[in-house]
Amino acid sequence: MSILDTINEAGDIKKVDPADYKELAREIRSFLVNNVSVTGGHLASNLGVVELTMALHLFLDLPKDKLIFDVGHQSYTHKILTGRKDRFETLRSFGGLSGFPKTSESDCDAFNTGHSSTSISIADGMVKARDLMGEDYRVVALIGDGALSGGMAYEALNNAGRFKSNMIIVLNDNKMSISENVGGMAAYLGKLRTGSGYNSVKSSVEKGLSSIPVIGDELVDKIRNSKNSIKSLFVKGMFFENMGITYIGPIDGHNIPLMLEAFEAAGKSRNPVLVHVVTKKGKGYRPAEVNPRMFHGVEPFIKKTGRKKENNGVVTYTDVFADAVIEEAKKNDRIVAVCAAMSDGTGLSRFRDYFPGRFFDVGISEEHAVTFAAGMAKVGMRPVVAVYSTFLQRSYDQILHDVALNRLPVVFAVDRAGIVGRDGETHQGIFDLSYLSSIPGLTVMAPKNGAELKKFLEFAFRHDGPVAIRYPRHKATQKLENFDAPVEYGKSEIIRDISDVTVFAVGRMVKVMDEIIDRLEKEKGIKAGLVNVRFVSPIDKETVLSAASRGEALITCEENVRRGGFGEAVADMILGSGFKGKFLNLSLPDEFLSHGSPNDIRDHISFDPNSLYNKICEFLQ
Amino acid sequence: MSILDTINEAGDIKKVDPADYKELAREIRSFLVNNVSVTGGHLASNLGVVELTMALHLFLDLPKDKLIFDVGHQSYTHKILTGRKDRFETLRSFGGLSGFPKTSESDCDAFNTGHSSTSISIADGMVKARDLMGEDYRVVALIGDGALSGGMAYEALNNAGRFKSNMIIVLNDNKMSISENVGGMAAYLGKLRTGSGYNSVKSSVEKGLSSIPVIGDELVDKIRNSKNSIKSLFVKGMFFENMGITYIGPIDGHNIPLMLEAFEAAGKSRNPVLVHVVTKKGKGYRPAEVNPRMFHGVEPFIKKTGRKKENNGVVTYTDVFADAVIEEAKKNDRIVAVCAAMSDGTGLSRFRDYFPGRFFDVGISEEHAVTFAAGMAKVGMRPVVAVYSTFLQRSYDQILHDVALNRLPVVFAVDRAGIVGRDGETHQGIFDLSYLSSIPGLTVMAPKNGAELKKFLEFAFRHDGPVAIRYPRHKATQKLENFDAPVEYGKSEIIRDISDVTVFAVGRMVKVMDEIIDRLEKEKGIKAGLVNVRFVSPIDKETVLSAASRGEALITCEENVRRGGFGEAVADMILGSGFKGKFLNLSLPDEFLSHGSPNDIRDHISFDPNSLYNKICEFLQ
Repeated sequence: MSILDTINEAGDIKKVDPADYKELAREIRSFLVNNVSVTGGHLASNLGVVELTMALHLFLDLPKDKLIFDVGHQSYTHKILTGRKDRFETLRSFGGLSGFPKTSESDCDAFNTGHSSTSISIADGMVKARDLMGEDYRVVALIGDGALSGGMAYEALNNAGRFKSNMIIVLNDNKMSISENVGGMAAYLGKLRTGSGYNSVKSSVEKGLSSIPVIGDELVDKIRNSKNSIKSLFVKGMFFENMGITYIGPIDGHNIPLMLEAFEAAGKSRNPVLVHVVTKKGKGYRPAEVNPRMFHGVEPFIKKTGRKKENNGVVTYTDVFADAVIEEAKKNDRIVAVCAAMSDGTGLSRFRDYFPGRFFDVGISEEHAVTFAAGMAKVGMRPVVAVYSTFLQRSYDQILHDVALNRLPVVFAVDRAGIVGRDGETHQGIFDLSYLSSIPGLTVMAPKNGAELKKFLEFAFRHDGPVAIRYPRHKATQKLENFDAPVEYGKSEIIRDISDVTVFAVGRMVKVMDEIIDRLEKEKGIKAGLVNVRFVSPIDKETVLSAASRGEALITCEENVRRGGFGEAVADMILGSGFKGKFLNLSLPDEFLSHGSPNDIRDHISFDPNSLYNKICEFLQ
Repeated sequence: MSILDTINEAGDIKKVDPADYKELAREIRSFLVNNVSVTGGHLASNLGVVELTMALHLFLDLPKDKLIFDVGHQSYTHKILTGRKDRFETLRSFGGLSGFPKTSESDCDAFNTGHSSTSISIADGMVKARDLMGEDYRVVALIGDGALSGGMAYEALNNAGRFKSNMIIVLNDNKMSISENVGGMAAYLGKLRTGSGYNSVKSSVEKGLSSIPVIGDELVDKIRNSKNSIKSLFVKGMFFENMGITYIGPIDGHNIPLMLEAFEAAGKSRNPVLVHVVTKKGKGYRPAEVNPRMFHGVEPFIKKTGRKKENNGVVTYTDVFADAVIEEAKKNDRIVAVCAAMSDGTGLSRFRDYFPGRFFDVGISEEHAVTFAAGMAKVGMRPVVAVYSTFLQRSYDQILHDVALNRLPVVFAVDRAGIVGRDGETHQGIFDLSYLSSIPGLTVMAPKNGAELKKFLEFAFRHDGPVAIRYPRHKATQKLENFDAPVEYGKSEIIRDISDVTVFAVGRMVKVMDEIIDRLEKEKGIKAGLVNVRFVSPIDKETVLSAASRGEALITCEENVRRGGFGEAVADMILGSGFKGKFLNLSLPDEFLSHGSPNDIRDHISFDPNSLYNKICEFLQ
């Protein structure tokens, strides 16, 4: 029997002989690699926090204590230690184990997370509530160095600095977030790490200063010559101390006894404490150690080599975008690209290789990314900001207030729009048409295939105002490439002539609807029109009204929630113009959609091609 | 002729004899008090930055150089110095001078601002663009200590820390933002200020350290006994230096030669420099010095005394909210209140006086405010977050991802919803129905009068899930108080029986529509139904469909942009159900609305009662 076999619920780890921690960590790593190589998932980050999670579980009393995972993709070991290891083969599949903390899965999951930099705010709230209610439990936020570049984390630190109550922030410093870390904070953490090796738990302040008498008068000269290093020599973690947070660290994040000692010390404080723990991303699995970036989020892979199982030359929308933006940038040296810690995910790492001086990875700071781009656009540049649909939610106010209100030509490449699948409800890109379309002056577009994405991008860089182009994750379809009408502002594209029944489809739904209409014609003898919407804002009123005036029936189709989406705006438009026909709005239900393969999710909510076909048939009866 | 008379365009100040700076500052203050006492506007902050703005104008070459005002309400002196003093009597009136920077007013306004903490991001972008384009101008961000608590500012500092290029951040530290400043950063700035009085421009690092040899060995003991103060003694501004930003300060913000010296020094750096300037809010006008909070944003007042011109006991929605939340909190000790540097504006200062331990002003950090509340709600509290509609845009992702997805009972008191008026396009609360209604599981409500706001709040605190209640600025109407149906989840309230023509009105539009329907009956003999929508999400489908099935004509009315609003959702709903009647969506145009009195704005966009009446008459013809 392995040691892991003895771990079946929270607290079981406390029964393990400390001499066996190392073996348990090894077993957990082996378990992680075995499972994730089959299911796909987040690997490198989880391999990095095995001992850290074990130490936290040894320290804490779960579920009484609250352990909040920032982002939450690094919670696999936590799940293994809290009675969920038998469900790992269902990881990220529909109805299976989520890849993120889920309060519905276990009462040891203190909060549902998925986006970055929220954990300290949540912990702040729990600490305040705990004290007000006179309760007694620990609150620990586990945050990565990448997430610390998000402004929210700073807002939360700033507020925690006033607390006169225990709260522990564990900074999991793996020297990179999703890609390499950027910015002053990263440089600062680097200095802390390299300052004087790992520390024991003794206050680093004391330690650092005890050397002063020895140095004596030379000190001043040293300081004058070497401003920055001397500062970190003096007082470790002063950045945090200045905010009112006690700093302990850096601690070796693979040494359980050292971490336990640090947590116990932190637990005794009457103030918020930040414990700086240094871990190695991908630890224990060579391919992930060598290339942690590639093993951040992975599809199933071959365990032995770390190679991807299939690499059949699929071209994704992200690939199309990456190529197209490089092409455009070759022609126009005003084009610059901005991403928020997602240079690989957004495809911009290729742009960086071509134009390193025109590429900006601002770290996990979507708000800044947008306004930074606005600043560049204001004085003559043509920035493109590539951010996933779900993360761009963070920038809603910046898009509205800094870009749109200033009428600036910023292009938003809204990747992962629509159902993204396995990352689940915190990551679905199903709100962007709603939150973007209500912003005045922001043009919102969605391409029907890869070729059109390229076309739209060309158009967007020439348009005098902000443009958002949303496109899905996964393969860029090549269907309907023979339809390539020139892009005209605010004009849709007719795929099948307007008819008694006309479908207005957005983005990837154009192809889906085209196939459904084929089937309608074959099976029911119904000849329907099909319009590729192209512009979700402003809507091509002329074509909509012309279809409405002609039509008996009008159908809209979009992979976005219904509320605030394209369909509602069309309904309003045609009803106001006196339309007396039938109307069908095919869109996503107004709810959060769980994890699973996109097709499983679509089946579940009856948004698969067959269900859509049936809905249309029923509607037309 | 006064000195101010000689200042007619940018640069004119450079011709003024330095001996006359003091007199010019006095004249500007007198000008500000004279004008703002008549027009209303932001006073205390503008009185505080007179010399600072003068020094910046002496240092910079406008409009070539870029001066970015954070928030922008402190730009009056800048406007006076750039040829706009003759327009000050039109300040904040429709068609008049804006109270914020407006690129359309002057090419000396580098960017349109209004929300907080954006200036450093904008400056980052401009600096990068300048360098890429090989241009040569200065970029200065002027940010207050309050705005520095916003996470975006930190994200931008974090990124600026890597720049190898000149950029100047002027921190205007007036020891408070709108209310008193809060948090670790405020405490830190406090330490910097009190550390050793004002510094000359000589690097404070050098200055602080030059005293070390004198202290000698005693130093270590001192450090051990007095951790925090010694740190700031050693290295001033290390918080910023740690981020890679050179720190100069603190500098007396009313001493022009000192500031000029500091700016010149900063201008020579090849790195971003933060110049810490300390100013006195309200300086030079006694009532504002004594009560700067009251003189942040003011209505017209009596210059001699500083008293409000009228105080006729008007009860605003904010007042109703303030009283109601106290009443609720008396009954339920789980109720806590959160605001973001707006304790007066949101009315929560009264709550603070009653329940100081249950009140949290988190500073200008709307993102943190929401997730902090989510953390409290998760472990059993019932938080209310009071934020203006326009500022809550910052929290869109937090409301969606942290509150709604976690199904937490947080109440959002969305003040200043609809047209707010004089603060203009950056402050209108005309998007909230769109951005809030598309969030699954978030209940969105709007009361028809003050009494109903109280009722809704009672309801919201008992509802098991998040609720947003949006209400306007200004007086809470007492009209229609005889309609007080119990609040039932998702149900609207019938004011006038459903008829051939039925109006569904949201919030303040209920009263307006009631009067219009009266007039319709009197002048046209048309008897229309009127429904108080109450729930904008979820919509009362039953009542809507019942009106649709009965009706010849259906009208919706809301003070929100059309796109994504209530009207569109109703159109979709009734059209999908086979409605064959007429439909009129009365909502705001999909554009940014400029400053002016609310009624002037409504006149301009034909949203005044008379225009609405005429639209309905035309529609019914």
